[in-house]
Formats: sequence, structure tokens, C-alpha cells
Amino acid sequence: MAKTDKDTAKAKVKKWKRRARAAEGRLAELATPAAPKKKVVIVSPLAPKDGFPLLPPVAGAEFATAQAGVRYQGRTDVMLARLAPGTVIAGTFTRSATRSAAVLDCQAKLGAGPTDAGAAILVNSGNSNAFTGARGWASVNALSAAVAQKLGIPENRVFTSSTGVIGEPLPHERIEAALDGLVSGLGPDGIAMAARAIMTTDTFPKGAMAEVTIDGQTARIVGIAKGSGMIAPDMATMLVYVFTDVAISQKALQSIVSRLTERSFNAITVDSDTSTSDTLIVAATGQGPALTNMRSAEAKAFERAMGEVMLDLAHQVIRDGEGATKFVGITVTGAANDADAKRCALSIANSPLVKTALAGEDPNWGRIVMAVGKSGAQADRDRLSITFGTLAVATNGLVDPGYKEADGAAYMKNSDLEIGVDLGLGKGRATVWTCDLTHRYIDINADYRS
Amino acid sequence: MAKTDKDTAKAKVKKWKRRARAAEGRLAELATPAAPKKKVVIVSPLAPKDGFPLLPPVAGAEFATAQAGVRYQGRTDVMLARLAPGTVIAGTFTRSATRSAAVLDCQAKLGAGPTDAGAAILVNSGNSNAFTGARGWASVNALSAAVAQKLGIPENRVFTSSTGVIGEPLPHERIEAALDGLVSGLGPDGIAMAARAIMTTDTFPKGAMAEVTIDGQTARIVGIAKGSGMIAPDMATMLVYVFTDVAISQKALQSIVSRLTERSFNAITVDSDTSTSDTLIVAATGQGPALTNMRSAEAKAFERAMGEVMLDLAHQVIRDGEGATKFVGITVTGAANDADAKRCALSIANSPLVKTALAGEDPNWGRIVMAVGKSGAQADRDRLSITFGTLAVATNGLVDPGYKEADGAAYMKNSDLEIGVDLGLGKGRATVWTCDLTHRYIDINADYRS
Repeated sequence: MAKTDKDTAKAKVKKWKRRARAAEGRLAELATPAAPKKKVVIVSPLAPKDGFPLLPPVAGAEFATAQAGVRYQGRTDVMLARLAPGTVIAGTFTRSATRSAAVLDCQAKLGAGPTDAGAAILVNSGNSNAFTGARGWASVNALSAAVAQKLGIPENRVFTSSTGVIGEPLPHERIEAALDGLVSGLGPDGIAMAARAIMTTDTFPKGAMAEVTIDGQTARIVGIAKGSGMIAPDMATMLVYVFTDVAISQKALQSIVSRLTERSFNAITVDSDTSTSDTLIVAATGQGPALTNMRSAEAKAFERAMGEVMLDLAHQVIRDGEGATKFVGITVTGAANDADAKRCALSIANSPLVKTALAGEDPNWGRIVMAVGKSGAQADRDRLSITFGTLAVATNGLVDPGYKEADGAAYMKNSDLEIGVDLGLGKGRATVWTCDLTHRYIDINADYRS
Repeated sequence: MAKTDKDTAKAKVKKWKRRARAAEGRLAELATPAAPKKKVVIVSPLAPKDGFPLLPPVAGAEFATAQAGVRYQGRTDVMLARLAPGTVIAGTFTRSATRSAAVLDCQAKLGAGPTDAGAAILVNSGNSNAFTGARGWASVNALSAAVAQKLGIPENRVFTSSTGVIGEPLPHERIEAALDGLVSGLGPDGIAMAARAIMTTDTFPKGAMAEVTIDGQTARIVGIAKGSGMIAPDMATMLVYVFTDVAISQKALQSIVSRLTERSFNAITVDSDTSTSDTLIVAATGQGPALTNMRSAEAKAFERAMGEVMLDLAHQVIRDGEGATKFVGITVTGAANDADAKRCALSIANSPLVKTALAGEDPNWGRIVMAVGKSGAQADRDRLSITFGTLAVATNGLVDPGYKEADGAAYMKNSDLEIGVDLGLGKGRATVWTCDLTHRYIDINADYRS
């Protein structure tokens, strides 16, 4: 009996000891601080499902990338594009009054000649060379001179861009040291690598292409872009480079590009903030079919294809918007004129209240009315109609009789949204694209720079 | 021995059992889901430390509040102010193109007479009566008629405001049902209660006062306000009511109020969004000292005192900004003109990138440069200087040689911040006030309305 008692007692001790140890061990586990959060690169949930597109070579355009170590380590951070003799260059740039030396330099060189020696584009990520005073100009000039010398082209045919932190001198000598390697690496297939080298905090590289038949010949348009809103540790920049093999005058190309920019890169907004370095450069190498009559069907088809490439790239920038979980198209119709329609659409797209409602999947059409009202566009409350996709939400200034809040809420669950606003006044119309405003936007931008 | 063994074993069982039970109990506690989060009303960390000020009565102004149950339960939601015969009314209103019927009605009644029968102000919270079409007008007219009848004053001397959800018909019959109680409760001391009745998601009531001596007599200016940015479940509104006993012409009062609004309520921004119902009404009852010469020292002293009351209320609205943790004054000097200075200051104040940097206590002056650049104001990058408090951050377009990042970071820890920007171009200057953009702003505004 004593033995049994003892055995029983021992068994009981064993049992409770096991339970105590198990529970205490689990408690200790729970009390252990979690491993420090790593900065995980997450690809935007709105990234194109098919990944980076296959971009064919464009005759007359060659690309190379390098790891110059401007700021980032272990990744490429410089791209060089060499463009064949005869290439014409068009572009549009930030309207910021505090734009960087590189932007001012590109603007001055647009349309400069002679074109018979070719041209080059040099882009670095990691440092934007903005707000760097006279040293900023010295860097731009040093890089232009170095590229011109290596490629045997005039300095005024070298276009440079820089993106990354601002207010710090650009260590341009690191880029110069990488030039020989870049030149020897130039090849027609390097554009996908180039799309990666120009990224800052983008979560995916951005590319697009189109082909168009001109006089029985296939012309190509291939473009890359970077940008995902304004990015920590400093504002980032939208940089876009498009290459085509058509032969076209600089003036005609510039006119097409300026027109298309209004409906693509100037019709997107992540947070209403504007970089000091935004740059779009379009190079036409002249090695493919020629466009001489700008009123021809061929010219129109070319402009349409160029517009598709530019809009595709612009949409990808929004799809990589900082913290974005919704891709939102906003179309305003019935405005007094097109300018009013765009003003109104941008007011909706930039409203923090609209953007937070979108993040919360709240079909809060009252905030759209508010944003219309504050836009400065001519509006009449009692003629205003609002749609979510094909859902009539408000009609003539009142909630639509057939609208059910549950339908609006269900619609808001989609990741791609279409908001329609009809002002009921005239024929003005415009579409802009934006994304929602989420906690992650604040995480990204409120982090102390480190 | 057996006994001792047994006792020891028993003691061991007891010990391990106790430890097991304790640890398992703690685990069970940890595993229990937390109680559902209640919507706790937290007072803004930036609220005035001294609480609501003691507001003295203003001769000729009486106040009452009631629980009409427009939307909220268990709190007052209507205020009525009765103003003595002879009262003149001035005001400024939202510039929104989609402003509400109550705002349009007030604007039409400004300066209307006769003043010999007195006037009234009726305000409800819970429902903004905005975007409600013809029914909105019917509610405004019904309430004006009911108040006019109860108080024996003309309908065009009854001013109404509504704030709260939009797009839902205002149950104005509930307010009418409360009118008898309101009229019988009118008294000179009710203004502190009135400040509470007009709140929506404000976290503290807002009041301010000043006294000024005119011809040996003391004149009083007492004001209340509500507003904390644009508030869930729908946009909120800034409503401000100021009462003074001076005798002054409507035209002179309106001119003072319009001038002061530019430097107070039109110089603050929480999120750049504009309500459809913003209203400022100033009533001068004429029971105190008279102001006849608007160029006199007394008139200037009165305007200065009125300016202090309005600015104090405007600052309190920012201190209650949704999710705000920083109160930020932004002064732009050296602009080409005052309008440019204000444009530039508002561009900085409304920039999501600047506001998130402030939230993160990041002295990110590059974003200020960016906001200057995009503002549309004339600017020269190489003449731009930036200060944080008395700290020189950037001078003539470059980081200041004496600036240390650690000093900037230390300054950003303050809850009240002063950002100075000198454009180095001319004599234009302006100051605006804003708050930071935090996770809580998104919590408040991305929540689905329920």
C-alpha cells in the first residue's frame, strides 16, 4: 500500500511537473520578444498578374546596367542607354519650381543637335542630386562630359536623371568609375535590367510595349518606368523612358508626347505630392518606318500605340502606389469643359477623406460630393450624379431611389474600382487614376529616415 | 520514512500542481479573446491644458440646449441662441460649390432686416441636411418658420446650421418638438452648454473670449466652435458662433469679419478637405459700447480682440484635428506677395509627405522643398531657407553648414512646432496652422460607417 501510495504520488508529481513545465515553457515562449521586424520587400497586391512583360529590342537602342554603389549595395543602380545616330529626343518634366539640375539640364538639351552622332541617357538611383546647389550642376556636367567622351557624342546629347535621397551631394565619381563597364556591356536586350536599375522603393519593375504597322513595316514602342508615389526616406520620383524605332521629326514627336502626357502621367496621382525630378524622355531612333505626314492614318495609329504604352506605364506606377490596395479610375463627365472635369476628378482623387474611405471599403459617396464641391469646378448640387461601376448611387443631387448601401459595400470589395461623376452641365470629361490611402502609406512615410 | 516520503511526495504534488494550475490559468487568460474594442472618446493630446474657458455673459445674447434625438442619444444635439432687438449679423461661409441649403439660406439672410425685432441662431448636430435636395430646403424653411413664430421675429432673421451625416433627410420635426423647451430654457449663461451641443466627433468643446475697453466701457467678445477636420461617419464641418455686445453697423462688422477670416479660419487645414456646411456667424447685439468711427483706436482694438478670439478658436480646431499629435505653425516669408506666401504655406501644410514626416518626428526638410516647388508660388531653389523653431536647417538652397540632423530630430519631439520658410524674393508673408497625419486619422476615416 505504502509502495502503491508512493508510486501514485510519484506519478502525480510527474504528471503535474510535466503540465507545469509545459505551461511555463509556453508562457516563456510568449514572453520572448519577437525577432526585430525586418524590412520585407512586399510586392504590391495590385502588381500586374503576368509579371514583367517581354520587351523586344528596338533597333538603334542599346542598354547596360551597373552596380556603382551610389547608395544601395548588392543591386544595380545605374543604367546607360546608347541611341543610334539620327535619334530625336522629346520629353516632359516636372513643373516644380524647385526642380533639380538634371531636369533643368534635360529641358535645355531637348531638341538640341546635331543628331548625326547619336545620343545617350544615363540614370542613377539612390541619390536624386536635388537641392545640392552648385555641386548639383557640377555633377550633371561631369557625368554628361564623361558619357560624351566615352561614346564620342556631343555633351548636349547626353540626358541624365537621378532619383533617391535629396540634399546630399551625388558621388558622381562612382558612376564615372562604372562607365567603362557600362559601355562595354551595351546591348539591345538590356532594357529589362534597366527597368530594375532605376527602381528606388518600387516593389516591381515596370515595362510596356506596343507594335504598330506603318507602310507594311512593324514599328516598335518599348518603355520602362519607376515610381510608386513619394517614397521614404525622401520623395521619390517618376522616371519614364520610352524608345521607338520610327523616323519622325523632333517637333512632331514632342507634340505627340506632350498631348499624351496630359492623359497619362499628368492624370495620375498617389498623394498629390510632386517630385522635383519627374522626367519622361522619349527617343525615336529613326531605324524603323518613317512618319512624315502627321495627319495620316499611320501617324494616328502610332500616336494611339504610344498612348497605350504611356498609359500602361502610368497605371503601373499607381498600382505600385505606396501602401495601395485599390486601383481607382475616376471619370468625370458633363463638366462645363475638359479642364473643369480634370480639376474635379483630381480633387476627388487627392481627397484624403475619399482615399481613406476607399481603404476602408466604405461606399461613402458624401465625400465625393464634398470633393466635387471644393474642386473649384463649376457644379450644381442638384444635377450631380454618381456611379460606382455600373451602380447608380446618386442621381440629380439625391441618393438614387434604387441604390442599396449593401450593393455599394459589395462593390467596394473589388481591388479595381471605377467611380463615375456626372456634373450634368456640359460636355467636358476627364479620367484620372489613383489609389487608396492606407496605414501602410503612413508606415512607409512616417518612418524616420535611417 | 514512508510517511516522510509520502509527505514529501504530497508536498511535491502540491507544489507542481500549484505551478501547473498557475501557468495554465495565465495561458487561458492570454488565450481569451480581448473584449471587443469600445469606441473610446479620447481627448486630443493637443487640447488646451486649462480646459474650457470661463465665458462671461454677453448682454443681449441668451442660449439654450436640448436633447432632440436627431441622431445621437443621451446627449444634447440642438442649441438655440436668441439675440436682442438691434443685433446685426455678419458671417463667412464655405466656398464649396455643393454647399448645403442651410448655408445658402444664411448667406441670403446676411444683412437682412429689420433688426428691431431681434434674431436667432438654431444649430443641430447629428445630421448635416446636405445633399438632400428639395427636402433639405423644406427642413430649413420649416425650422426658420417655427423659430420665428416661437420668438416673434421675422423668418429672415433666423439663421440655421446643421452638421453630421449627409445625404439623409433631416428629421426636423424632432427639433421642432424641442423648441418649446429650448425657448423656456433661454438664459445668458448657456453658452458653455451650447459649445457641447454642437459637437460631432470633436474630442473637446471649444470656447474663447476677449474684452476690450471702448470709451471707458468694457465690450465683450465670446465665441464657440466645433470641428476637428473631416469626421467619420461623414465629413464634418467647422461651425463658429461669436457674440459681442458692441453697437456696430452690419457693414463694418462684416468687413472686419471677412478680413479676420483670411488670417484665422481660412489659414488652417487638417486634411485639405472642405465641408459643404462650414459656417461662421458673428452677432453684435448693440447693448454695449458703440463703435462708429472705424478708423479710431477703439475700432482697431476691437478688431484686434475679435482677431484673437477667432484665431484662438481656429487653433483649437487644429488642436482637435483627427488623430493629431502635433500642432504646427508654418510661416512663409520673402514671397513675391502675400498670396504667394499663403499658397506656399498651404502647400506645405497639406502635403501628405510633410504631414507623415511630422507624425514620424522626422526633420525631413527635403519634403518641404518639394512642397514649395509644387505650390505654384514663385520660388528660386537657390534662395530658399528653412528653419525649425530657431534652428537654421537650410540656407540659400543648401543644408545649413551649422545644421546637425540630431538637433532637427530633437526639435521634432515637441508637440508644438514652428516651421519657417523664407523664399528670399520679396516681402510677401503668411502663417497657416495644421496638424500631422497619423494612423489614427486613417482609423477614424477608413472605418466603415455603422
